[in-house]
Amino acid sequence: MSSRRFAPLPDIPRQAAEGRYAARGVSASKDEVHAVVDQLDRGVLPGAFCKVLPDFLTGNTSKANIIHSDGAGTKAILGYLWYKETGDTSVFHGIAQDSLVMNIDDLLCVGALGPIVVSNTVNRNARHFDGNALAALIEGSETFLKRLREWGFEIYSGGGETADVGDITGTVAVDSCTVAIVDRKQLIDNDRIEPGLEIIGLQSFGQAHYETAPNSGIGSNGLTSARHDMLSPYYRRKFKETFDPGVPRELVYCGPYRMKDPLPHSEMTVGEALLSPTRTYAPVIKELVDSLGGRIRGLVHCSGGGQTKCRRFGKRVHYIKNNLFEPPPIFQAIQKASGTTWKEMYQVFNMGHRMEVYVKPSISKRVIRIAESYGIQAQVVGHTEKGVSSKDGKNPLTLFHGKRKLVY
Amino acid sequence: MSSRRFAPLPDIPRQAAEGRYAARGVSASKDEVHAVVDQLDRGVLPGAFCKVLPDFLTGNTSKANIIHSDGAGTKAILGYLWYKETGDTSVFHGIAQDSLVMNIDDLLCVGALGPIVVSNTVNRNARHFDGNALAALIEGSETFLKRLREWGFEIYSGGGETADVGDITGTVAVDSCTVAIVDRKQLIDNDRIEPGLEIIGLQSFGQAHYETAPNSGIGSNGLTSARHDMLSPYYRRKFKETFDPGVPRELVYCGPYRMKDPLPHSEMTVGEALLSPTRTYAPVIKELVDSLGGRIRGLVHCSGGGQTKCRRFGKRVHYIKNNLFEPPPIFQAIQKASGTTWKEMYQVFNMGHRMEVYVKPSISKRVIRIAESYGIQAQVVGHTEKGVSSKDGKNPLTLFHGKRKLVY
Repeated sequence: MSSRRFAPLPDIPRQAAEGRYAARGVSASKDEVHAVVDQLDRGVLPGAFCKVLPDFLTGNTSKANIIHSDGAGTKAILGYLWYKETGDTSVFHGIAQDSLVMNIDDLLCVGALGPIVVSNTVNRNARHFDGNALAALIEGSETFLKRLREWGFEIYSGGGETADVGDITGTVAVDSCTVAIVDRKQLIDNDRIEPGLEIIGLQSFGQAHYETAPNSGIGSNGLTSARHDMLSPYYRRKFKETFDPGVPRELVYCGPYRMKDPLPHSEMTVGEALLSPTRTYAPVIKELVDSLGGRIRGLVHCSGGGQTKCRRFGKRVHYIKNNLFEPPPIFQAIQKASGTTWKEMYQVFNMGHRMEVYVKPSISKRVIRIAESYGIQAQVVGHTEKGVSSKDGKNPLTLFHGKRKLVY
Repeated sequence: MSSRRFAPLPDIPRQAAEGRYAARGVSASKDEVHAVVDQLDRGVLPGAFCKVLPDFLTGNTSKANIIHSDGAGTKAILGYLWYKETGDTSVFHGIAQDSLVMNIDDLLCVGALGPIVVSNTVNRNARHFDGNALAALIEGSETFLKRLREWGFEIYSGGGETADVGDITGTVAVDSCTVAIVDRKQLIDNDRIEPGLEIIGLQSFGQAHYETAPNSGIGSNGLTSARHDMLSPYYRRKFKETFDPGVPRELVYCGPYRMKDPLPHSEMTVGEALLSPTRTYAPVIKELVDSLGGRIRGLVHCSGGGQTKCRRFGKRVHYIKNNLFEPPPIFQAIQKASGTTWKEMYQVFNMGHRMEVYVKPSISKRVIRIAESYGIQAQVVGHTEKGVSSKDGKNPLTLFHGKRKLVY
């Protein structure tokens, strides 16, 4: 196994990352989606992280509704591979958590801190994704929601839907939908991100006091690329139901590793690191908001778009990120295996912090102290200056990977 | 084309329907799903059609929350085939409606008549399901919600999620999640279905006054079977992304028709009939509830499980359905093409009415009159007698297909 770690990369053409994503059926920039969605009503707080509706549900003018959907994406396929190789269904507890946290941590960014109700949807191929796997998924969801409640974060399951759609999927899609009603004065509006703020990054790796195991930091984004670029052709030969047969062969499972191989510079295996369940920042953000209220000028969940996600928010801002965490081993390994440029890595992965808090410099230390009281390393990763938005409404970002300057 | 209509069925082994469903990756009885779900909390009204939660969202003890998820299922694949053959994206307006109505009409059955907020999730293969198709889906959803509001049914979109997951799906999965807050005293509890009621069926076919075209009656259930049993091997050869390659070849697109072929005994083509958007009964049920309130003892949306869906509801009831509508042409054609027994047909498809209203015989005429004022044929399709539930908690059903007695 150890020799495989250092095996040379397969000699395949290394297309630019955008081309690789598109060839794999992933439209990374999602421009065509935004072209449609941007014509729609943007809600009552267009600068907020999630769409915010008037309180249609109860008609209270001082409140707002948020309904938000997201899922585990292709991380579910990694869970499937793990299950097929090991017989261990508990991997789906993590996948259930991934799907939930991709919603919950988005909701945090608008100040929706519970109560929340949630519904899960599982689209599966019943021939491949069996009843035991399904049971683990449902149990995992219930268990994680219970843990969140124990941490003081009110969230309740309203049931869900399981559809047997073997012609739609060879494996499984796991999605969640979350709903909250929030006092309008408690909403967080990322339009309040302006020049002169500090950006505090909350580490995505390590182990928070409320977690039971260390986290690789991976989250639930970029997993199509990570899976193919990290995992070996063994998976292509053995699990044909886990990839799009129309994607060029050299882009499918073209990496050096098997799941059980050790991840370089880490105590985890590659499989453990790729499958590390997405951390929720709910307990931390709840205390931050309780303590600092409106002094939090913005929150950005670095999900799709990674470290460039912030560019969609704020007004006339130039984001400077010049003191980032050193990317943890999983991202180092993905970069090495894929040959992706660092510039692109920061557009896909969180690279070390998955949540950022925007405040005036005077209270940065308090933010850091609160985060660290939960066992989550935090630091001022950058700041905001005056900037000019590009034509597509995105703000400029200058990011330093070590000493290397990357401009977006 | 007309010769194809009457072409002999391909000479393939005709397994029992259960076996055919399982081989196609559809677990029709969903027993393994229920085995897991039945251990979970059933909510505050365990006999209701949907799970009903306490009002977690606002903490009002006189209210309840309902969060409900469902989707278009494999009907989305039919839409995809139509689009690929004709270039007509408007077919996805219907698919958007299917996904929404599968939720809305379930909500009707607990008395959730708006306001409702909704979120859609689209999991797609961006290589096959392109931006134009996606745009049509989103527009279709917005248009249908607007129409519902024009009919006095308050429902609002809170946005949605589009995920590019080409390794999970070759085509597209379209799902929706709906949320409502309802006065507890307005909830409809199907536990109130008891002996001595009449069952009024509301036709699934024809054209309601609020619809712009005739409906075949198909709804969004049983479409995996219907698609394969109706459509010809042409689709197997041409659209490999639309079926599970692990399903035995003789069960894949083994029917006699192309989309554009005329449906026997109908003005529609086969494609039009299979893709006929699921009718919502929202305007009718809203007036029924407004007029009759608590005198409505139960509502059953004949979705998954078709005409046997009612068996999960009510107490010590024997359902007798002895005056059903004659199945419209689409179900006749599916039965003929598939060789499925009539007994099984009624377990999968609605067969002529997709909504049933349970009332004392004294008000049946009022129910029928209200339904017919919307252009929807309605009739007493049966009644309830005393019965004994089976071990799995299901009530017995005796159903007459013409003069043929079918016992469930």
